[in-house]
Amino acid sequence: MVRDQGLQQVADALGCPMDADIQPGGHYRPVVRDGALLYVSGQLPRLNGQIVSVGPVAPGEARQGHATLEQARHAARISALRALMLLQRELGSLDGLRRVGRMTVYVHCSQDFTQHSEVADAASDLLHQVLGEAGVHARSAIGVCQLPKNATVEVELTASAREAA
Amino acid sequence: MVRDQGLQQVADALGCPMDADIQPGGHYRPVVRDGALLYVSGQLPRLNGQIVSVGPVAPGEARQGHATLEQARHAARISALRALMLLQRELGSLDGLRRVGRMTVYVHCSQDFTQHSEVADAASDLLHQVLGEAGVHARSAIGVCQLPKNATVEVELTASAREAA
Amino acid sequence: MVRDQGLQQVADALGCPMDADIQPGGHYRPVVRDGALLYVSGQLPRLNGQIVSVGPVAPGEARQGHATLEQARHAARISALRALMLLQRELGSLDGLRRVGRMTVYVHCSQDFTQHSEVADAASDLLHQVLGEAGVHARSAIGVCQLPKNATVEVELTASAREAA
Repeated sequence: MVRDQGLQQVADALGCPMDADIQPGGHYRPVVRDGALLYVSGQLPRLNGQIVSVGPVAPGEARQGHATLEQARHAARISALRALMLLQRELGSLDGLRRVGRMTVYVHCSQDFTQHSEVADAASDLLHQVLGEAGVHARSAIGVCQLPKNATVEVELTASAREAA
Repeated sequence: MVRDQGLQQVADALGCPMDADIQPGGHYRPVVRDGALLYVSGQLPRLNGQIVSVGPVAPGEARQGHATLEQARHAARISALRALMLLQRELGSLDGLRRVGRMTVYVHCSQDFTQHSEVADAASDLLHQVLGEAGVHARSAIGVCQLPKNATVEVELTASAREAA
Repeated sequence: MVRDQGLQQVADALGCPMDADIQPGGHYRPVVRDGALLYVSGQLPRLNGQIVSVGPVAPGEARQGHATLEQARHAARISALRALMLLQRELGSLDGLRRVGRMTVYVHCSQDFTQHSEVADAASDLLHQVLGEAGVHARSAIGVCQLPKNATVEVELTASAREAA
């Protein structure tokens, strides 16, 4: 329950209701469980039906049509939060989670942006805050030229459950 | 056998021979099986030795050197079809497949293209058409600045077999 | 031990000390083991604390601020070497490795570069050289607009151990 309380606290701090609608429209699912493996679909930084940060992140001061490093880090936190909320729904409680294996952080960025690790750190810190050691993962941070809905960040997780389905 | 018949029908509809050559040249394999896990290499939209759509997909009307949304969706279908054909060859029959866990759809796009989900939907629909519930997967759709051979789409699958090898 | 000797030979040939520091700073890990699965974090081509190739790879002759195909291939080898060194440290010896399941090679490239497969081949060849059949993997090669620290290449591996942890 400590993990679930941690998730609730993080969700409250970020202003994200726990009953947010995160069901996709197409023939895919937010989480697929295959044995003990849990695949979480790439999460955009949606909050109350809005993408919290759009456009490429660029270095330095705010630029027209671009996101700042802090905005991208906020977006990474929201995406990571959504991924954890999906795992909680799938398992009933995050106490059923064995661990997070891999996180991929796709960062929509300008060509002169190189601080992808700082963006991804915001998501990594959130996983650790909620899950402790079980949230410490392998990670890849990648700079891309676009993401669905012009989002600044997309976060994908692969995790495992304590028990196979 | 229903799944294999479904695959045959889809291959026929897309004009793709079932004995297409899909062996890569280098020190890697189209499918690797590790226990029950099946890793499918990223599939380009090749049909009869040709990439069916090259160049970045751009929004709106056809632009010189660019692909349209419909062309990108067609390419996504061909790539997904190839991934299923590879799984069928590996397993002998798609009836040996437990499920598709994750699909990543890389979309080579212009910087003003944001309909990555619509491109990926074409691949998701094909998996569902052939495999039913077992084809419903977790998904990430990513916009990238280039792909091998200037292809418009690349599709990667992770799946599982009913029995460990 | 043959694999470990092979790794030592490759590391010597590439000028990479076996005790290189490859611990990340944030709340993630270079390798996470979950049961038999081994997730290796995306590896940049670092050698003696320096990224060996920065900037996008472009086709043809050397261009200002860009990497050549050969430089990108060298970077892919260094990244793949680091991934194997991490697996060796995690397992004590590469003899504990069952196989490499998947490799993703992210290639930071100019928009007119399409030889991603040639870049990835350098990493695939190195895995095969050290691990033989156990190193033959499924692969995706992706062209991206940026990578952390402006690196030319990032390599991510998913592998498995002979015994579950």
